[in-house]
Amino acid sequence: MSAKPLTDLSKLCIHTITTKPWNIETAAKNFSAAGVKGITVWRDTLEGRNIKKTGDMLRDHDLKIVSLCRGGFFPSIDSQKRKAAIDDNRKAIEEAAELGTNMIVLVCGADPAQSMEDSRKQIRDGIATVLPEAKAAGVKLAIEPLHPMYADTRSAINTLGQANDMAEELNSPFVGVAADVYHLWWDPALEQEIKRCGKNNHLFAFHICDWNVPTNDFLWDRGLMGEGCIPVRKIRSWVEATGFNGFNEVEIFSNKFWAEDQHQFLNKILKAYQEKS
Amino acid sequence: MSAKPLTDLSKLCIHTITTKPWNIETAAKNFSAAGVKGITVWRDTLEGRNIKKTGDMLRDHDLKIVSLCRGGFFPSIDSQKRKAAIDDNRKAIEEAAELGTNMIVLVCGADPAQSMEDSRKQIRDGIATVLPEAKAAGVKLAIEPLHPMYADTRSAINTLGQANDMAEELNSPFVGVAADVYHLWWDPALEQEIKRCGKNNHLFAFHICDWNVPTNDFLWDRGLMGEGCIPVRKIRSWVEATGFNGFNEVEIFSNKFWAEDQHQFLNKILKAYQEKS
Repeated sequence: MSAKPLTDLSKLCIHTITTKPWNIETAAKNFSAAGVKGITVWRDTLEGRNIKKTGDMLRDHDLKIVSLCRGGFFPSIDSQKRKAAIDDNRKAIEEAAELGTNMIVLVCGADPAQSMEDSRKQIRDGIATVLPEAKAAGVKLAIEPLHPMYADTRSAINTLGQANDMAEELNSPFVGVAADVYHLWWDPALEQEIKRCGKNNHLFAFHICDWNVPTNDFLWDRGLMGEGCIPVRKIRSWVEATGFNGFNEVEIFSNKFWAEDQHQFLNKILKAYQEKS
Repeated sequence: MSAKPLTDLSKLCIHTITTKPWNIETAAKNFSAAGVKGITVWRDTLEGRNIKKTGDMLRDHDLKIVSLCRGGFFPSIDSQKRKAAIDDNRKAIEEAAELGTNMIVLVCGADPAQSMEDSRKQIRDGIATVLPEAKAAGVKLAIEPLHPMYADTRSAINTLGQANDMAEELNSPFVGVAADVYHLWWDPALEQEIKRCGKNNHLFAFHICDWNVPTNDFLWDRGLMGEGCIPVRKIRSWVEATGFNGFNEVEIFSNKFWAEDQHQFLNKILKAYQEKS
């Protein structure tokens, strides 16, 4: 049932936001020195930089650029804002290609001023609109279902089942899903939806962290693997049973950890990755 | 599609916790004077009181006692605590019978120290254990699925689909569900699960409030109907389409409203009930 412990770091990817106090150059240097093999780049870290050269810098550190985070936020009751979102997603696709990654994570968005059904339709239409550019650029789009507590403004796609439905409807090798244990752990259908996702070659990414008990902030209180109540290893076993051979991406937003020395935090991540993931 | 506005108060029930600063006597007097017809009694309000006489007092105010809130919290990794929970649920059944209500709302519980599957099994077993007493007392048990953000410690039953599954498995006229818009609004299967629930005569209760955008507290920041993003009237239309003829129960936990004059808050509830529910 349970997956084997992760005794080496060959599939460890860390999101730049996880060590938010570090800029991308510092993160790259320290991740690489620690033996981390993958990085997911949040777009804010590219600000004011030559994106192609930043990609080269990451590759020089022997880091695989697993994905660019994030596109999405398609829905709005305001058509001008929907158009702006499409433009921003096109820009994200260009940035991904320049950076040299073949994947963008989509935080799909939701507008509380309209129905969830309308938001979902606008998400589907938005992805369909930018799909030709994504395909031309060789960039895959990973729909990330978010926890239902973000259904008001962050995503109208709140279960892996919904993300699978949408990926199947869009029916392209360039559309799949990103499964994050933080958003999905509570779902009784999780194992079956991971299976379905894998069977359809839609499982593009796997994100890990933990759910703190209690959780004190809606956004910035994620835990390190093993600190909370998510059965990370069990979920990883379901992911690996599909044949998934991608990275285990550590994505932690935490005011607590960001206030610590980031070298010490990185050591904690390595330990939690090997012992609790 | 949409239900008719609630032009009269004949189906308005308010939970005692909604006006938490008032004790049950004050709440009863003020609810009744305002034309409210139902009350759901939280157990803390009965402390130090003769329960039967309190029930009489409520009936003297022409208030139907819609339910007693709450039983549940069955799961624990510790068998002694599970036993204590069974005892407490038996006590709740006695209290409900003394008070003169035929329903208890179950907040089912979860223990983050064990798997969700174990917690769910303990919930099912716990309900099955107390069911004979409930039946003997003429008290129905309403399983309330809670929002997935409460899956760590408050409930391992997080969708109406799961609550329906459990009610069907337990297969008794004394087990059904309580549907609360706050917990369920985000679920794409909600309309279909409300239908299913009604078809099986399992829809025992309907709770309303709203989801504030943004929400600032995991527990104590519920909104008044119309203040947030929940399509309360649309969901009510689905509930009524099943033939449900019970109360619309206003259950709001809000530090903001509790800090206000409760007479003014009650007026806001009446207005929101008629205009936005």
